[in-house]
Formats: sequence, C-alpha cells, structure tokens
Amino acid sequence: MKFELQYTLQGTKARAGKLQTAHGEIETPIFMPVGTVGSVKGVHFRDLKEDVKAQIILGNTYHLYLRPGMDTIEQAGGLHKFNGWDGPILTDSGGFQVFSLGDIRKLSEEGAKFQSHIDGSRHMFTPENVIDIQRTIGADIIMAFDECPPGDSDFEYAEKSLGLTQRWLERCVKRFDETEPKYGYKQTLFPIVQGGVYPELRRRAAEHVISFERDGYAIGGLSVGEKEEDMYSTIEVVNEILPEDKPRYLMGVGTPINILEAIDRGVDMFDCVMPTRNGRNGMLFTSEGIINIKNKKWENNFSPVDPNGTSFVDHHYTRAYLRHLFQAKEMLGAQIGSLHNLAFYLWLVGEAREQIKAGTFKQWKNVMIEKLGRRL
Amino acid sequence: MKFELQYTLQGTKARAGKLQTAHGEIETPIFMPVGTVGSVKGVHFRDLKEDVKAQIILGNTYHLYLRPGMDTIEQAGGLHKFNGWDGPILTDSGGFQVFSLGDIRKLSEEGAKFQSHIDGSRHMFTPENVIDIQRTIGADIIMAFDECPPGDSDFEYAEKSLGLTQRWLERCVKRFDETEPKYGYKQTLFPIVQGGVYPELRRRAAEHVISFERDGYAIGGLSVGEKEEDMYSTIEVVNEILPEDKPRYLMGVGTPINILEAIDRGVDMFDCVMPTRNGRNGMLFTSEGIINIKNKKWENNFSPVDPNGTSFVDHHYTRAYLRHLFQAKEMLGAQIGSLHNLAFYLWLVGEAREQIKAGTFKQWKNVMIEKLGRRL
Repeated sequence: MKFELQYTLQGTKARAGKLQTAHGEIETPIFMPVGTVGSVKGVHFRDLKEDVKAQIILGNTYHLYLRPGMDTIEQAGGLHKFNGWDGPILTDSGGFQVFSLGDIRKLSEEGAKFQSHIDGSRHMFTPENVIDIQRTIGADIIMAFDECPPGDSDFEYAEKSLGLTQRWLERCVKRFDETEPKYGYKQTLFPIVQGGVYPELRRRAAEHVISFERDGYAIGGLSVGEKEEDMYSTIEVVNEILPEDKPRYLMGVGTPINILEAIDRGVDMFDCVMPTRNGRNGMLFTSEGIINIKNKKWENNFSPVDPNGTSFVDHHYTRAYLRHLFQAKEMLGAQIGSLHNLAFYLWLVGEAREQIKAGTFKQWKNVMIEKLGRRL
Repeated sequence: MKFELQYTLQGTKARAGKLQTAHGEIETPIFMPVGTVGSVKGVHFRDLKEDVKAQIILGNTYHLYLRPGMDTIEQAGGLHKFNGWDGPILTDSGGFQVFSLGDIRKLSEEGAKFQSHIDGSRHMFTPENVIDIQRTIGADIIMAFDECPPGDSDFEYAEKSLGLTQRWLERCVKRFDETEPKYGYKQTLFPIVQGGVYPELRRRAAEHVISFERDGYAIGGLSVGEKEEDMYSTIEVVNEILPEDKPRYLMGVGTPINILEAIDRGVDMFDCVMPTRNGRNGMLFTSEGIINIKNKKWENNFSPVDPNGTSFVDHHYTRAYLRHLFQAKEMLGAQIGSLHNLAFYLWLVGEAREQIKAGTFKQWKNVMIEKLGRRL
C-alpha cells in the first residue's frame, strides 16, 4: 500500500493525501461508511458508490465471523465477492465488539473468549486467528487485535491494558508477516495506538507502533466516554509521534465537528456508525446544522431535505414528506436519512480536502464548526 | 382520460392498450405498485421509475387521510408534489381499509364511521367526502366508495351489500361531477363492480356501473377468501358486460399466476401488496419459480439473485448474500426483495403485452403458469 502526502498547510496539521490499495485509490481525508455485517444498513452498494461517493467501507470481523461465517466468505472468494463491493475494504479486528459483550467474554494473555450474541455459542479470538480471519475476509486493510479500555479507565488499568495490546500487536505482526493473502491481492496491517487519556501512555504506545514500520496507524480507544478535550489533546499527542508520511486512522469517531477537529490535528481516515444510526432515527446532519426531522416544525415545510446536499434524496424529497415517513414508520424514511447523512459525511471530508488544497482550511473549518453545531 | 385498445387476439380476451392520463401514458396490461401511505415500502421513487419501470402507483385514501392528513397534502399541492412521484396515481376509496377495521367501524346508509388505528380518533367516510378527499389527494384515477363483502358472504348479504354499493356509487358520481379538480389537471372516477361470487349479482353490478359511462371500471371484492375458480369465473362474467373500449382494473390481485389468468380473461390493470410484502419477507417471484431466500439451500449459492431479472439488484447481489441479509435481519434484504419482486411484476405484465402483440400470448402463458408455480 502506498500513501502519498499531497498537500499540507501552515498553521494546521491538516493534510490531503492519496492512498493506493489493491481495490483502488482513496483520497484523504476520508470517511468510511460502516458495513457491520457486510452491508451498510439501508443503502444499496450502487448508491454507496455513485451517490454517496464512498471510496472505502468498513466490515466488522466479529459480526462476519459469526454470520455468515468464514466458510461462506471463503467460498465466495472474500467479502468483496460476497457483497459485491469492489472498492477497498477495511476490517476492524473484532476486539471492540468483543469487549462490548461485557459479561459474556473473558480476557487472558492468550486472547478473548466470548459467547456469540446470536446463539450463545463459545468462541475465542486471539491475535493470530483474528489475522487469519481478516485474511479470509480479504480486507485491504487489516486491523491489529487490541484491547480498548473504557474512557474512564484509571492510569493503572490503562497501562496494564496497553501492555496487553502491545504484546498482542507483536503477535499480530508476526502472524501477518508469516501468512499470505488468500485471493491474490495485497493486504496491509495497521497497528492501533491505545493508552486511554494518559499522554505518557499514548506516547509510549505511539513509539511502540511505529517501530513496526507499517503502512499506516490507527488511534483507538477514543470517543468511548472520555471528555471531548481529552480526545483532541490525545490526538495531538499521538500525531506528534506518528510519521507524516503514513495515513492516520481515528477509529469510531464521530460527529462532523469531531471530524473537522481531528483533520485539523492531522488525521486522515474516519469511520463511525453515527451517520447511518442517526439517519435511521431521523437526525440529519447538514452544512447549515442539525435537523430533527421528526419535529412538528417540519410538518408543512415543503423545501427539499437539504438544498445544499449532494445526494439525490436531498432534492427529490421534501422535509414534510420525510417527516411523514418517520411518523408513519415507513422504512423509506430510514433509507433517506442514511443516504443523506452518509453523503453529507463524504461531502464534508471531500470539502475539507479541497479547502486544504486551496489553503483555506482553517477559515472554512471555523465557519463550519459554528454552523454544524446549530439546531435547525 | 383516453384509452386506446391496441391489440387483441383470437382465442383469448387478453388485450394490450394505452391509457392517457394527465401525468403520462400507461401501457396495459399494467401492474401498479402500492404506496399505502404515499411511499412504496423500501423503494426510492427514482428506482421505482428507472429500475422497476413502474408507470402508475397506488395511494390509500384511508391512510393518507389519517396521516399526513388532507391539510398537509393540500398545502403540498397534492400527493404528486408531496411525495415527488410525477407519474400517474390511482387512489382506492378507503372502503376496503375501513371494512378491515372490523369492530372499530360501523356501517350505515350514510357511510362508514370508524376509529383511527393510529390514535382511536373518530371519523366518518361518506361517498361524498371520499370523493372530496381524493380530489384533494389529486389522484389521476379516483375510486368510488364501495362495501367489499367477505369472500364467504352468502347471497343475501352480498345482495344487500351490493345495493348499498350501488346507492353509494350514485352519490359518488354525483359528487364527482359537481366538483372540480384542485390542481388544474383532470381526474377521472372508476366505479367498482361488487356482488361476491354470485354471477347474477355480478351481472347486475356490471350493468349498473356501465350505465354511468365512465372512463374505466374496476372489479372489486375478489381475492378476499373466495375459491380461485370463483375468482376466475367472476372475472369472466363481469368482463362479458364491461365494454371492450374501457380499461378494466382488478383490485388487489394477486399472485403472478392470478395476473396472467386475469389478463387472459381481459383485465388491464392490477395492484397488490404481495410483491413488496413477500419481498420484505424473503419470498422472491422469478420467471423460473418461487425462491424462499431464507432457505439454507442458498447459503453458499453465489449465483445472481435472478439471472433473468430486470432490476439491478438481480445482478449485483448473489443469493448467498441476500440470504445472509435476511438471516442478519439487515434492512437491505427487504429493500432488495421489494425491488426484485416489483421489477418482476412489471416485467411480467410488460412481457404479457409483448406476447399479446406478437400473437403468442396463449402459448407463452401456458409455459409461464407451469414455471411460476414451482418452488426453486
């Protein structure tokens, strides 16, 4: 995988780049729609490509491993062939999902034992088999297996957890380097920086991951309950250490404002369920602010969903009609909300890129941050 | 509204025609996707037009009257403006829905009192206000207010019910002829032939409706629990009387086989929730037979959903992937199933039209009926 840093700017760490993968080129900064079980909820792949203009999507190792299972994925020839998405795919390691299982998982040096949320069956993830699974899924970008401590972890816990994540990373890298891709195209492995909200631990983690000289690095364990300032300062600490010439991926973040703040601090890649989850529930992000479409104020508002929007749904449907769909619990409402929000997120990162190129990112960002927080 | 009978054929009553409406031309035989509350469940209007190739859709007076309500629809400038579908729209009269309410409705000579299934509020439909409501909705084709007796009604009940339907029709026609369209384009009113499964009543009903010399006529009260032979023989009885030069609409029917049998007996227009409802539940109609996509046999079947299908979903997605979506309860599964089935229904009536033109309808129909009943 090749990353080319194309544009940087005085007064911000924001950057624009180009990432080459076996399934195509990605222009950064980029947002990756989340396809948990191999489907971005409510959105046809054709629309994801042509309307949302997604350049890369995410798959979840935990979910795909349980269902449809590796047998089916391997027989299909990998996730790209299985779901028909022919662009780049990144898979998370399953760690985050497993740790969210709470009582039905048990952690050890070896790995994480857990019970399926579907049928209660028992499984174990280890750094090794999580690499093997992602080889089978055929992700272009494979994530290391890590422990993600809660946002309120104390230093002691965060440090202990980081130790485990570091030892697991060593095992992940070893397994990755010993194994071959299954479908004839190259895959790459991104380590993950953990360490809670403790700058000392984050620095230690960042120094550790870069020692493996991989194609890119991720910042994990943020947007998990910590304060927003802690998230931003942690990104700053970590990005002081992560190399300039490699892509940086901030996992699971966040609101449009979070994304602009993180771009300003040198992050290149994002994923989050927020655009689809909130879209399904009638909360729309727009360049002028947030719309709760269920609100009675939209009942007789026949202006387009988002006059500045880039999706066809923004112009075809009116706010009054979209509100009606949510009132009547019609699934088309969730489809429209999801498409709109994803298209907006992709527009936002694409526009950030243009503003970086044009040298106007800082000014634009300040205007946008003020607008994005409004309630319309 | 103008109907042109274009092709007829020896040995069948099947016919192909062209119906002119204020919102465009409809080639018959035609199937009309059902947009109960102003949305065809799970399907974007863009896809309904460009992928499914729907030429006319249905709206439900009962549902639209309750939600979003006539105020909103009128402020929008009618349903076309409200939902953004610019092709022809037909609305049912609300009668069928009201009678389905059972205990929470009460019938009288004046009309039908009922309670909303949403909030229990009390309302009344009369032949007059149902016309007014459909004027406000702005449907191109307005249906008369009728009583639809159950499929197992005895002669006495069916006759009494028909009397009411006939008196209501007189009031509907009077109101329709006394009122003007609200949005500057012409609307038309179709009477409905009732009479249960009793040929004598159906004949009486058919003679009565044609005395009003309207632009088209509907056959109601079928596919409501009667035997299939009774449905077919009733269509035959009624179509002996309905004029050749007017379109005939068989309400709420049915399976692909029902539709071909009815076309063979001279029906031109159809609607049914079956393609969307069954599609949402994983039952796909194809030209080779019926697929229950949830079946384990499709688990590792990587052939396209329907190699003969006309929708993009038929070729983009595999059976294994679609099964996976239903297993994982992903809404994309319901979207694919709905689009596929609607596209199949539209293909079926379009192909029937081609076969009528080519003079090969009978032979083609016999082959298709055998295939359509298969379980794949």
